[in-house]
Amino acid sequence: MSGDHGLRSSITATINALNQNSALHISLVGDEPSILLALAQKKYNPEQLQIHHSPDIVAMDEIPSKALRYKKQSSMYRVLEMLRDGHVSGVISAGNTGALVAMSCIVLKRLSGVSRPAICAPIPAQNGYTLMLDLGANISCDAAQLYQFAVMGASLSKALGASDTPRLALLNIGAELIKGPSVVKEAAELISADPRLNYVGFAEGNDIFSEQIDVVVCDGFTGNVALKVCEGTASFIRNQLKTKFEQSIYGRLSAILAMPVLKAFQGEINPDRYNGAALLGLNGVVIKSHGSSGVESFESAIHQAALAVSEGVTQSIGTQIGTNKL
Amino acid sequence: MSGDHGLRSSITATINALNQNSALHISLVGDEPSILLALAQKKYNPEQLQIHHSPDIVAMDEIPSKALRYKKQSSMYRVLEMLRDGHVSGVISAGNTGALVAMSCIVLKRLSGVSRPAICAPIPAQNGYTLMLDLGANISCDAAQLYQFAVMGASLSKALGASDTPRLALLNIGAELIKGPSVVKEAAELISADPRLNYVGFAEGNDIFSEQIDVVVCDGFTGNVALKVCEGTASFIRNQLKTKFEQSIYGRLSAILAMPVLKAFQGEINPDRYNGAALLGLNGVVIKSHGSSGVESFESAIHQAALAVSEGVTQSIGTQIGTNKL
Repeated sequence: MSGDHGLRSSITATINALNQNSALHISLVGDEPSILLALAQKKYNPEQLQIHHSPDIVAMDEIPSKALRYKKQSSMYRVLEMLRDGHVSGVISAGNTGALVAMSCIVLKRLSGVSRPAICAPIPAQNGYTLMLDLGANISCDAAQLYQFAVMGASLSKALGASDTPRLALLNIGAELIKGPSVVKEAAELISADPRLNYVGFAEGNDIFSEQIDVVVCDGFTGNVALKVCEGTASFIRNQLKTKFEQSIYGRLSAILAMPVLKAFQGEINPDRYNGAALLGLNGVVIKSHGSSGVESFESAIHQAALAVSEGVTQSIGTQIGTNKL
Repeated sequence: MSGDHGLRSSITATINALNQNSALHISLVGDEPSILLALAQKKYNPEQLQIHHSPDIVAMDEIPSKALRYKKQSSMYRVLEMLRDGHVSGVISAGNTGALVAMSCIVLKRLSGVSRPAICAPIPAQNGYTLMLDLGANISCDAAQLYQFAVMGASLSKALGASDTPRLALLNIGAELIKGPSVVKEAAELISADPRLNYVGFAEGNDIFSEQIDVVVCDGFTGNVALKVCEGTASFIRNQLKTKFEQSIYGRLSAILAMPVLKAFQGEINPDRYNGAALLGLNGVVIKSHGSSGVESFESAIHQAALAVSEGVTQSIGTQIGTNKL
């Protein structure tokens, strides 16, 4: 954990999570004095909490390859070593995503047969959420990688309890079989040929929000753009709604009356509810939280990590990729 | 025009546009009996309106290459021939996009020096709208094509009156120069080297809605996904808001009070306000309207076509691409 403004939120979230689940143990890795300061006056069972001093941090704008080379003493590197050595069962980081992916590949290694890890996160949708991957770990992907992402996404979806046969779709620019880049069409053939996967076809950008789909697969460039367009649209719409309600006295009065409804609505589309992107395809559970996470948001990431561990997502992906010819 | 449910809306929009602008002349090309039926009891100056019978239509799911081969008698092909032969100054179609692009390339031809046409449309944003291209005409693009899209987008932006030096950005997954695919980085070099273009750097998905950007350039796969994610998010949020207001008697009451504000808000984020995607890079103005356009939406497409003609967008793109070495 770095000493940035997120430390206070993540520590409050940690304490809340520990107090809700007495079986949970959390190790905080970072600058000990800062952590102790943030922990002061918090009530928790000290047996559930460990602190590991690790003052060096990876900056948010640090180039991943440089972080990998020069930041082996950082809290990020240290916590991945703890996971590798079995001292913890899962890792949560709100740090530099590129560095986290690069360090995870080196320290944890990829699962046997996995060619690249992928970043997978839930997007709010009609049926609660849709899992989407890759969200930026891989700028371009071949068909076999997209197939592996489908296997990984399905495993996480099952672990999170959506369904035993999560409905998988490939992101494309049309629903018809002839549409789209050849790599996407080849991936469709690979995915639909695997009887263990419930492939439902191509999804267009708007289908991500449909209740007919549980997991959407795409390359990391498209996925990252899609995720940020989704966040940008939601933020733009919230601002427009706020402005409209503030533009007149009538608007301000009606906003007061409509407040409970508007609050419930904001809660429903709040991305914090679904915070926590999983790095899939590695030897261990690694969850990336938003850099500017609030308390609820960080709690959601802890919850997701605990579920991924208890449901054996790593083992499930390992088994499924391992038994495939690809 | 096909005989589908959109005919009534497009005819009402046509009559409204003619009645607002006595200098405007519109030719309706399609099944004459259906058009006459929809025109019955409408009031307009008959000198402003011509009807051309052309009963054959391109189906919405028709493969572009097949439409090109077998549908030379269709209203779509016919209207492009009328544009090529100087009988009209611009074309608006709500038909099959792929077929429209393919037929436009064959009938109108590309402007000299343009390697591929691009689909460009406005996305609602903080500063009114941001133009985005390509939205699906080209699945993948090289750096020189992305550069040409920047030139085309800047020309349309100027014609629509945003600014004399529209701010151009390239869609990417990070703002830093080292981020993203090599094709995007090469395009950045080409665009920033052209002193006639006001290049402001990389934009992430959420930056499309920023008031700092007028035109966003990307390949057609990414652009199409982004556009549909944007529409999907807006539609998802509208549904959530509606559901919340309908869930309780209190919600329904406060919705009545908040109605004027909610209506103004809906108007602000309504994509119909900015309907009309321009096919840029062709010898002539071609505007693609949404397939399921309402009256306001189709009027917006007519307005956009008229502006593109009067502001000489085609000539402007032709001059700028023509004088460049690429």
